[in-house]
Parts: sequence; C-alpha cells; structure tokens
Amino acid sequence: MKKEERLVTQITPKSEDFSRWYVDVIRRAELADYAPMKGMMVIRPYGYAIWENIQQLLDRRIKASGHVNAYFPLFIPESFLKKEMEHLKGFAPEVAWVTHGGQEELEERLAVRPTSEAIIGAMYSKWIQSWRDLPILINQWANVVRWEKVTRPFLRTTEFLWQEGHTAHATEEEAREETLKILNLYREFIETELAIPVVVGKKTSREKFAGALETYSVEALMSDGRALQMGTSHHLGQHFSRVFNIRFEDSNQNLQYVWQTSWGVSTRLIGAIIMSHGDDSGLRLPPHIAPIQVIIVPISIGRWKETVLPVAVDLERRLMAAKIRVKLDSREEYTPGWKFAEYEMRGVPLRLEIGPKDINQQQVVLVRRDNGEKLTTSMDNLEGKITNLLEEIQKNMFNQALEFQRRNTHDVDNYEDFKKIIEDRRGFIRAWWCGQETCEESIKEETAATIRVIPLEKVKEGKGNCVYCGQLASEYVYFARAY
Amino acid sequence: MKKEERLVTQITPKSEDFSRWYVDVIRRAELADYAPMKGMMVIRPYGYAIWENIQQLLDRRIKASGHVNAYFPLFIPESFLKKEMEHLKGFAPEVAWVTHGGQEELEERLAVRPTSEAIIGAMYSKWIQSWRDLPILINQWANVVRWEKVTRPFLRTTEFLWQEGHTAHATEEEAREETLKILNLYREFIETELAIPVVVGKKTSREKFAGALETYSVEALMSDGRALQMGTSHHLGQHFSRVFNIRFEDSNQNLQYVWQTSWGVSTRLIGAIIMSHGDDSGLRLPPHIAPIQVIIVPISIGRWKETVLPVAVDLERRLMAAKIRVKLDSREEYTPGWKFAEYEMRGVPLRLEIGPKDINQQQVVLVRRDNGEKLTTSMDNLEGKITNLLEEIQKNMFNQALEFQRRNTHDVDNYEDFKKIIEDRRGFIRAWWCGQETCEESIKEETAATIRVIPLEKVKEGKGNCVYCGQLASEYVYFARAY
Repeated sequence: MKKEERLVTQITPKSEDFSRWYVDVIRRAELADYAPMKGMMVIRPYGYAIWENIQQLLDRRIKASGHVNAYFPLFIPESFLKKEMEHLKGFAPEVAWVTHGGQEELEERLAVRPTSEAIIGAMYSKWIQSWRDLPILINQWANVVRWEKVTRPFLRTTEFLWQEGHTAHATEEEAREETLKILNLYREFIETELAIPVVVGKKTSREKFAGALETYSVEALMSDGRALQMGTSHHLGQHFSRVFNIRFEDSNQNLQYVWQTSWGVSTRLIGAIIMSHGDDSGLRLPPHIAPIQVIIVPISIGRWKETVLPVAVDLERRLMAAKIRVKLDSREEYTPGWKFAEYEMRGVPLRLEIGPKDINQQQVVLVRRDNGEKLTTSMDNLEGKITNLLEEIQKNMFNQALEFQRRNTHDVDNYEDFKKIIEDRRGFIRAWWCGQETCEESIKEETAATIRVIPLEKVKEGKGNCVYCGQLASEYVYFARAY
Repeated sequence: MKKEERLVTQITPKSEDFSRWYVDVIRRAELADYAPMKGMMVIRPYGYAIWENIQQLLDRRIKASGHVNAYFPLFIPESFLKKEMEHLKGFAPEVAWVTHGGQEELEERLAVRPTSEAIIGAMYSKWIQSWRDLPILINQWANVVRWEKVTRPFLRTTEFLWQEGHTAHATEEEAREETLKILNLYREFIETELAIPVVVGKKTSREKFAGALETYSVEALMSDGRALQMGTSHHLGQHFSRVFNIRFEDSNQNLQYVWQTSWGVSTRLIGAIIMSHGDDSGLRLPPHIAPIQVIIVPISIGRWKETVLPVAVDLERRLMAAKIRVKLDSREEYTPGWKFAEYEMRGVPLRLEIGPKDINQQQVVLVRRDNGEKLTTSMDNLEGKITNLLEEIQKNMFNQALEFQRRNTHDVDNYEDFKKIIEDRRGFIRAWWCGQETCEESIKEETAATIRVIPLEKVKEGKGNCVYCGQLASEYVYFARAY
C-alpha cells in the first residue's frame, strides 16, 4: 500500500466492531500481513520488533532461573506421537504431515511439530541415566504448526512462534515446584513487561493439555470482555517418561521414571497486547516492549531545517545514548499532524514535539500515548525525565488494565445472573463450581463460557452452591468467554 | 551417557581420522546429538549457546547496517516454487513436502522452505508500489529444510538454522552494492568473531545459487585442508521480481521491476569453528563466541572448602561483574585433573587454577587453551588482565589460522602439480582458469576440486595459461576440495 493511504480514519472504531478493529490495527500498524496460504501470516518488521523485545525480556528470566536453551528437530515421526495416546488424540487433527522428501515417498510420515514433548522425550531417554543428570532444564525458541480451521492473526494461526520449556526431575515434588515457579515467572513477566494484569490458576481436567497430569494457566481479560490464555505450564507427571522410557538410577541404585514439566508462551502475546491496550486511535504499546519508545516530530515551519532539525538530531543522539529507543521522523513529505496520528496509531508511548518557539525557550513538548497528557519541559536532563516518564507510562498502563479487569470481574451466585452478565457485559465471572464435568459442559453449551482457571489464591474461603446444579461446591472459579 | 564416561581419551586423534575426530568432538563436548530421524540433529545446550553468541554478534551488525528482522511462513505452495524454473530445478530434489493437514489431503502440496525467495517475493509484490517503498532491507532468523542424502552434523543436515536476508532495490547498482556490502560484513564478522581467516569472491556460473544472477561467497580452509563455504551473498537481478511481479513506480511514473539480493549464513559456522580451531584434545573456542570464557578450577587439597572455595567464589563474582562469561566448577566428585581435561576438550579459552598456596601469595594460575601457556599472576585487577588476555587469545587464534591458511595456499602453474598437491596436501590451489565450464568440470571429475571463488581482490595481474587447457586465461582463481 502507498504511504499516503495510511490514515488513521481507516481503522474501524473499536466500539463499533472489535474484530474488525483488531484486524485493521494489525494491518495499518504493519504488525503482520496475511500470507497467500490459508491461516498463515507474515510477521512484519514492526510486529517482529515487539516479539524480539518480548524474547529478550523473557529469555533473560528463563536463563536467570537456571534454564538453558537448545534446539530440537522440526519433524517428529508418527510412531513417536502415537506413543502417548492422549497426546496423539489431542494433536492428531491439527498435524501437518510430511510424506515426501525430494522425489521419494517416506517410509514413515513425519509430523511438523505441533509441540515437542515426543521428540524431546526420545532424546531425554538417551541423555538421562543417573540422578546426577537431573534436573534437566531446557528451553527452546521455535516455530510450531497446528492445522487450525479458524484463524486470526497472532491469536490462532497455522504456524506460530513460541518458547517451550521441557524439564525432567527426580521427584514429583520437584516437578510440581518447577511448574508453579514458571507459572509465577510468566505472571511476573506479563504484568511487569506487557503491563497486562492476569489471573493464574489450574485448568480443569477438560481443559488441560493433552498428556498432562495438571495444567496451570495465566489468563487475562481483553478489552472486549473476553478472556485470553496467555501462557501455560504443565505438570506432565510420568506420562511421557513411561512411554519414552526416561529412567534414572537413584542414589540407592533403583531405576526410576523421571517427572517432567513443559511450558510455553507464544506470539499470541502480541495479540494480547493489542487487545488489552489498544483504543480507537490504534495501538498503545507498553514502553518496555515498544520498538520505538519516543518519536521526535520536528514542527516544520519556516527555516526549520536550519533551526529545528539540528536540535532534534542532537536530542535523538542524547536519548539514544541514554539507551532510550528513539526515532526522529524528519521526512518532509508528511506534515507534523499526519505524523502525530501515524505514531499514535502505531502505539508509540511518547511523542516529543519541537518547533521554533520551543528552541528559543530551550524546551520541548511531550505527549503521552497512555492518557493524552501534554507537558512542556525544559531540555535540561531530558534523558532522565523521559526515562522516568516511560516508567510512569508503563505503570499507568498496567493500572488502567487492572482497573478494567476489576470493573469487569463479577461475583455471581445464581445462573440467571451468570447468563445475563455473559450476554450483556462479558468479563470474568467468579462463581462456585461443584467440580463435575457435566456442569462445566452444560454451562459451555448454554453460554459459551468456559472455566478459565481454578485460581491459585483462593478468592473465597469455605464452600457454596454450584452455580449450575446447586450442589455443594468447594471451588470458586473464573469463567469467561475466551479466544 | 554417564558423566564418568566423558574422558578425553575417547576422542579419536585428529591426525588419525579427521572425520571421526570431528564427530567425536561434537559428541563428547555435547554440542549436538543425532536425532532418531535420518539426517536430523539436536543442537544441545553447549552448542546452542555458541549459536546464540553468533546470532547476537551478527544480528547487531545486520541491524547497524540498516536492516530489520521479520518472519515469513515455513510453508511455500508448490506453484510459487515453480514460478522461477531455475530455482525450482535447483531445490526440487531437496524439498520436504507437506501433503496432509490434520485428516485432510491438501489441494496443493506445500514445500517446507528450503530457502524463502519465493514466499518473500510474493509478499514484496504486495508491499512495494512506489520508489518511496524502496529499498526494503529485511532479514529473518529461521529454520530451513533440505532433504540431503549424505549428512554430517552442523555441515549438512536435513534441517538447519540460519539467517536469510532479502532486499529489494530500485536500481541494479544498488542491489550489487548491497550484495558486496553484506559479503564484507560476513568477512569482517567471521574474521573478527570466529577468528577464521577467509577468502572472498564470486562463484562461477556452475556454482551459483539457483535463480541468482551472481553469487558471492566467503570461503575458509579447514584444518584438514578442505574448503568450507561459510556464507553466500546473491545478486538476484530481476529473476524473482519478474516472476512475482514486484514492480514500483519510479519518480517519472514508470513501472519498473525491482532488483533483489539474498544472503545467508547458518549453523554450519559452528562446524567451521570446530574444524578450523580444534586439536587432538578437542575443541578450541574463540573467546568472543565461547559460552564459557574462563573456567575456575579450585585445587581440592586439604581444607580447600574453607580456604580455597570462598576465594574462588569471590573471583567468579568479580569476573562476572566485569561481564566475563565465567564458570566455577566446584564439584567434589571430579578431580582437578579430570576438570582440566574436560574443559580443554570443551574448548574453554582460559583456565584459572587456584589452590592453597596461591591464596597465601594472593595469586592465581592461568592456562591458555590456544597455546598451552601457563602464567602465574597476582589477583590485583584480575578482571582487566583477563579481559586483555581473552582479546590476545582471540587474535592469536586468528593468526594461527591465518598462518595455516598461508602455508596451505599453493600457487600452481601446471596440472601435474595441481593434481599432486590436491592428492597429497590439499589446501587452496590458486591457478589461472580460462573461464570455460568444460575445464572446470574436468578438473572436478579428475581431482574432486572445485573453483571456490574468483577472488574479489586480484591475486595476480595480467593473464596466464589455463591450468587445464593451456589457453589464455584472465581469471586467477581459488580451487579446493570442499565440504
């Protein structure tokens, strides 16, 4: 598309049609584009730069907690997937199959990995012999493929990028500890860096990962009131170690099966950022992951190229030296007004305007994307002020989202209210649940709401009546319509 | 395998059997392991950490030269590959084909990308309309698949990791400039960071990339006298822009096809590091890419845990603070002697030994992996000394490899000498070549040597006689047996 066509007016208002708004923002901000194959997308440079920032901030945490990265093959023989039947059943409908290599038909077809438990299990059985080899704490950054029927950029695509951690431990206790440690790592990462408040907890049996003993999840509320699963951490028990024969000799020379975990977050996080923070003007990016944190727009009046531009160039250099991700847009073919709208649409957290008048007074104008506030400030120690301001914006965006989540979390004690709220306002509904899958399924059929998590931190003590069947219930859980 | 089994004596001496030595080093140093599928490997954490360092140092250069990263789909429809026939012919025998998604057979089969020119071409035709959209300077870090008959870890595997740059320009001159700019970037990167001296130049038509106008290559001599192609930079001309209809309106409103380049280096670089620098004791890693730059081995005598260990811990902390990648191996179940051999085998550039005597004298013993030198030095400003020493090791490793390359580059003016040298000593052979493909092919058939490059910087001025046919020749080229 031509540069001149990029106008903010071409974004459907969020309040009018959320789905179209979402796709418009992705297209106009050049985060991604549809590939010519069904369900596949291209992550464009601006979107990929967000992913790189996510990777860097998360990878640092994964390594600091003792994990190392590795790389396992893209292809998994069909027979490996078949070893864990629950796992196969869960993924078989979504697998892309390679049947030919060059001109030859393969003896056994190969799955393009939908997730890597099976191939990693096979390798761990080679690498693990003794208790001294444990724990194994490996993570991988990779692409995976799931043949989805209905797709949506970043949220559900045939191919996506993610990290998947796979660990092996000597005891069940250690494996559960690891599962929860990662769940907390995800929560802290998402809240601190993406400025998205989350609820964390356990999935019901119905919603758990194919092959896991227990699945824990990090869930957030998008600004249309639907929930999004942002990351999962699975306690795999011994399901995979038994079928892949991953055993170790313990300190008493007894052979034992290892206990495993796996966990992942994906490019879906970018979808979450768009849907949590975006508004009618487009994206709003939290400073920690914004590819451009500050956009400098020179006010192009009169002899601005001789007066304003050199100062703008100097400010860019100063901010860069202070490790702020800054960009100066000095293009002449666009007006300052057009640039204001453009970078608002692209979600840049802070705009720095500088014109002839400002130069005389040694000041600049700063405009915040999070709340529209405009402030005039002197050029002295601008680096320090902007660094602090970016942190303030980061915190404010988190608080705005937290406020939204609180306003849209409803405690409900009867099914009529449940149905009405889900229909009218959506959001999280918290209610008692008896633990029976039949109730869970009926609610899903009748309202399209699912149990997102059984929260780790109890919201209510004691017992109550199941919101569906009325029987005595001890779990107070989060429901929502979800992506 | 059990930790106790890891003994350096299990590495086949390099002089005895280079191929077995190579595979032994990879296995013993835990760089990679064979996956249970033919031709596929797992990159283990120690090998992957080398790749991460390579990525970081190269990505910084790619970005500093104005490129941005993006991500394109793994799958390419067969019809897209077919558009550029030369390209298809080059890659068809190596393509893995996806024919089924879930339970359904696909209408059109999908290639698992062997390289991404075709899919990127399709996207560029959407993104490029005007001269203002140019140049497009995009790079991607990705996995690719080529169905190879004969494989060898890191050098030739069914799947490998790489970066592939894809650029589009308004003029042929700009595209050629980009091709050469990247060639020089690769040269500088490989020589500076991997400590491997290279020769750079143009490939002959016979050896160029399927679909390129011209291919330029960076070639190095491995320590067995065979050459390895370390990276390539292709001037694609308008081959792909014509078939994918990538056109732009120039400033005179005329529609023009863009000029393109593509370029890449892969995990093959790790193979080059092993084969350039390794010796009978195992790996030797250049400090810039070594996952562990300094290994601290406490001498475990007497009450070492009370006397030596606290000092070792403190030294580790100090070196870490100075951004040196340091590790303290304080395990009790292994002797210092075992650790010396172990980390030598793993190629750690510098060993720091510290025992009770050293503590009394406030000194440590440093042992260099590049030349075995042992030096005793005081603990004052150890950070600064080690930082300098690591730089010295980096330079010395480059010089050692350069010396080897010089000793093994032979200027030859007759075919008898050519054949004798290739048979006895291998190495680079420089000789006149008439430019005819028939001579090139006969030489290859008779000696297994190929033209590695027509060097960019002329080695000899004027003309001479083709080393094969004796006719007048104006190209003085590099031959070698290659991987």
